[in-house]
Amino acid sequence: MAKDVEVGEFTAKDYQDPPPVELFDAEELTKWSFHRAVIAEFIATLLFLYITVLTVIGYKSQTDPTNNTDQCGGVGILGIAWAFGGMIFVLVYCTAGISGGHLNPAVTFGLFLARKVSLLRAVMYMLAQCLGAICGCGLVKAFQKSYYERYGGGANELAPGYSKGTGLAAEIIGTFVLVYTVFSATDPKRSARDSHVPVLAPLPIGFAVFMVVLATIPITGTGINPARSFGAAVIYNKQKAWDDHWLFWVGPFIGAAIAAIYHQYILRASAVKALGSFRSNA
Amino acid sequence: MAKDVEVGEFTAKDYQDPPPVELFDAEELTKWSFHRAVIAEFIATLLFLYITVLTVIGYKSQTDPTNNTDQCGGVGILGIAWAFGGMIFVLVYCTAGISGGHLNPAVTFGLFLARKVSLLRAVMYMLAQCLGAICGCGLVKAFQKSYYERYGGGANELAPGYSKGTGLAAEIIGTFVLVYTVFSATDPKRSARDSHVPVLAPLPIGFAVFMVVLATIPITGTGINPARSFGAAVIYNKQKAWDDHWLFWVGPFIGAAIAAIYHQYILRASAVKALGSFRSNA
Amino acid sequence: MAKDVEVGEFTAKDYQDPPPVELFDAEELTKWSFHRAVIAEFIATLLFLYITVLTVIGYKSQTDPTNNTDQCGGVGILGIAWAFGGMIFVLVYCTAGISGGHLNPAVTFGLFLARKVSLLRAVMYMLAQCLGAICGCGLVKAFQKSYYERYGGGANELAPGYSKGTGLAAEIIGTFVLVYTVFSATDPKRSARDSHVPVLAPLPIGFAVFMVVLATIPITGTGINPARSFGAAVIYNKQKAWDDHWLFWVGPFIGAAIAAIYHQYILRASAVKALGSFRSNA
Amino acid sequence: MAKDVEVGEFTAKDYQDPPPVELFDAEELTKWSFHRAVIAEFIATLLFLYITVLTVIGYKSQTDPTNNTDQCGGVGILGIAWAFGGMIFVLVYCTAGISGGHLNPAVTFGLFLARKVSLLRAVMYMLAQCLGAICGCGLVKAFQKSYYERYGGGANELAPGYSKGTGLAAEIIGTFVLVYTVFSATDPKRSARDSHVPVLAPLPIGFAVFMVVLATIPITGTGINPARSFGAAVIYNKQKAWDDHWLFWVGPFIGAAIAAIYHQYILRASAVKALGSFRSNA
Repeated sequence: MAKDVEVGEFTAKDYQDPPPVELFDAEELTKWSFHRAVIAEFIATLLFLYITVLTVIGYKSQTDPTNNTDQCGGVGILGIAWAFGGMIFVLVYCTAGISGGHLNPAVTFGLFLARKVSLLRAVMYMLAQCLGAICGCGLVKAFQKSYYERYGGGANELAPGYSKGTGLAAEIIGTFVLVYTVFSATDPKRSARDSHVPVLAPLPIGFAVFMVVLATIPITGTGINPARSFGAAVIYNKQKAWDDHWLFWVGPFIGAAIAAIYHQYILRASAVKALGSFRSNA
Repeated sequence: MAKDVEVGEFTAKDYQDPPPVELFDAEELTKWSFHRAVIAEFIATLLFLYITVLTVIGYKSQTDPTNNTDQCGGVGILGIAWAFGGMIFVLVYCTAGISGGHLNPAVTFGLFLARKVSLLRAVMYMLAQCLGAICGCGLVKAFQKSYYERYGGGANELAPGYSKGTGLAAEIIGTFVLVYTVFSATDPKRSARDSHVPVLAPLPIGFAVFMVVLATIPITGTGINPARSFGAAVIYNKQKAWDDHWLFWVGPFIGAAIAAIYHQYILRASAVKALGSFRSNA
Repeated sequence: MAKDVEVGEFTAKDYQDPPPVELFDAEELTKWSFHRAVIAEFIATLLFLYITVLTVIGYKSQTDPTNNTDQCGGVGILGIAWAFGGMIFVLVYCTAGISGGHLNPAVTFGLFLARKVSLLRAVMYMLAQCLGAICGCGLVKAFQKSYYERYGGGANELAPGYSKGTGLAAEIIGTFVLVYTVFSATDPKRSARDSHVPVLAPLPIGFAVFMVVLATIPITGTGINPARSFGAAVIYNKQKAWDDHWLFWVGPFIGAAIAAIYHQYILRASAVKALGSFRSNA
Repeated sequence: MAKDVEVGEFTAKDYQDPPPVELFDAEELTKWSFHRAVIAEFIATLLFLYITVLTVIGYKSQTDPTNNTDQCGGVGILGIAWAFGGMIFVLVYCTAGISGGHLNPAVTFGLFLARKVSLLRAVMYMLAQCLGAICGCGLVKAFQKSYYERYGGGANELAPGYSKGTGLAAEIIGTFVLVYTVFSATDPKRSARDSHVPVLAPLPIGFAVFMVVLATIPITGTGINPARSFGAAVIYNKQKAWDDHWLFWVGPFIGAAIAAIYHQYILRASAVKALGSFRSNA
């Protein structure tokens, strides 16, 4: 009995796992909260791409030696990393209560695999995210067409000197970091136990993006979000961006799947227990 | 019945929307809490302009090649963006319980449209904010008149190569990001549901400003706050700053209005329900 | 009755102002919690000066053209501002429950004026802070004596081109920003009302320091903490640092006094009410 | 009686110190939660080294004048400091509820000395951390072998011009800052009293790392984590990295021990009381 008290663990179950979400749930379509969530994902992804790509283009125009003698005049790559991470923080904070704050098809895919969202919701979110990303990049291009095209349009491409395998691995691990953080932040078991989990949640999710951008911007320009890569590729629309484009869907989806497996099978329960509960729900 | 449990939504109403604030409320004038709030808005906007414009002038004097051989010697545009976002975080934190922490006529306008503040309070806040901004810029000029004038006085102007339409759009979308975050942070429905909303509130509001400055500083110098633009224009008082000045009132007010409509009609309720409740309150 | 509900204010008093602390309280000396608090102030101020002055010296050695061809190689002035603000955040977080987390004679002075700490505690804290600052700077000098002396030892001096009046004003307003934030973060009235106040408290205090450093480092090197200025002056011990030294005591103490008056007489209560309660306590 | 109310202290004991953990607890090995914690430490340390060393290598390749004319093109030393501090914030947040979020043999050692973890758990964590660090650095080398070797592999070395004593002292004080913050953040006495302690906990721990990196990167490249130094040394495997390697074990362990003593004997209780409780537990 005395051994029941473990380091940082409760013996009594003071939380409830919500039941897995049904795969198909046509009734969702009749609810305003569903449509509202899809609209919120669209608007938030639009704002995400608008702010971040505008920051990238502004940085490149300010440090271009043909325009400007001061090569240190822009916000720096550190500023770009802040733009990506900071916007994810702000937008996850704003949309968490409306749509769950995915803003990224890889996050939606991971949460779908863990049976947290229905297939219908997952598909609708991904469509809204891709459409939002296209509109956000389109706004930046409309603001300054010549700068937009000259400075690469914020599109993700494999940098010279890195193999496709390296780029794919960078996207897989980067997305793993992000989706692992999302699972940790939204785990109902941990929310009951650790008071800091639900309160801080949007901040470490934003920081995870910030960190991955710092590390992988020299390799792939940092995708880890297929909507972000797709929107930029559609609006920029150059051969090179499309040639590498598959990397920015396959990598993030593999990374998200590994994060979902790691969280559900290793961290949340022994593989045996999880397997049992999976069967009883099927 | 089993369908009542939705993703991230409560079925039972565990919050109360406060009733819309009356348009005219002469009794407010008799309360110290009202006058105290106006004073707090004045002081906070003064400190906001003082710190941020001093940072801008300091950066420009340190990176001026005629003064200084070290062009990397200043805090950088990233430092300027931190000054704007960080001061908003600190000051919203300090004044939230006193005045609501607006510090920006566009925020006051958005909250007035949503019937969260009375017309009297809105007008008094805007006057206090504009007066505070003038005094804050005046302090910076008093410190170093020659630097202040040589380095543009922190005034907002449209950068060469951008059309008035682009500048206006940049101000509209930037203010939308800010006011949308303010509405999300102060929504009584979400506060009841998401424990992170009231706790973190001042931080994402500050980050929203930080992000918008990173993205739009090369276009307009980033207004999204008519008091900030007005105070700098009054003290700097050059033709160019006044020529573009209307952009920095019209853009933010349109952006704030769109954010108020988006939050009240799309996110908070179906348009139909909102319309009904609007009627019953009128 | 219906008018009792105001914007962001409670009608019922759901908090208790602690009574003013007695000026002299010899019994404090018999308690371990008092001595522990003095030790914690000493250690924390030592660590504060050690980390920040080491960052300043490291930055200057890395960007010195005689050492290094890469003038952008250091952490930048932005990095220095983070060092000051970030250490205050970490150390206020660590010491808040032990000593109240002052780490600064101006903060102690402001809280003494507001009768939150006794005279004995205030004097002992200031001695501990000054001693800690001397030891922290001494450690940095012991690590690299030649760099320490060549790069100014982190001492505060008025920059060329600024008058003594400007330097004094910069110190007054900068300390006002800091001490005003400290009062807002520790107000028992607000803690009861706004759930974000006690949770976030150390973060905006750290950010207030970060902001003031960004803005005033070109003018005075940013004091706003007499212990920081005194410790650096004692260890650096050059004429110029001592000539301007009075600025870094007079300015911060005036700024802290104004913040205490602003908070107690304007924000917390009408001047009349405050005067009444002051009398009854005297 | 009236004197019982002290500044920031409770008279009634509203918390319970957990009993010291037993040194040997073979039963731990039979629990999934133990193995899960070891796996989580391994994965988190792997991700920590992967992201941070990739950022270091990317920065050095982008600012190398032989590759690149733009010396301001990288994320800067400030960006590197953010990578270290930010990853610790994210990973402590993610693993706090699973393993306690150590990610660092010095932290594990400090918590072992304070009898918060068993010897078995401490040894297993350290092995997992070292193995994770090796794998994380191995991934970076696999991505870009030539860059990895050319730019020093992220290994810790004493910079020219600093003595071994200075390097050791820098590691001791740096680790003290980190482990002191960890103790403050996880103190059950403070959690009961200060609502901000458990909520913010991962953030000041991350900031402590950020601050120490800013200050000591010019001296030792900043270890304060023996697993980080060991993993980089194993994969880089050059003579110089091994020659100084002992510094990065001895320094952090001494610093962690001092922090444990400071927290347990000075801050938590009078030395006498602590001694008494130590005896009764032995």
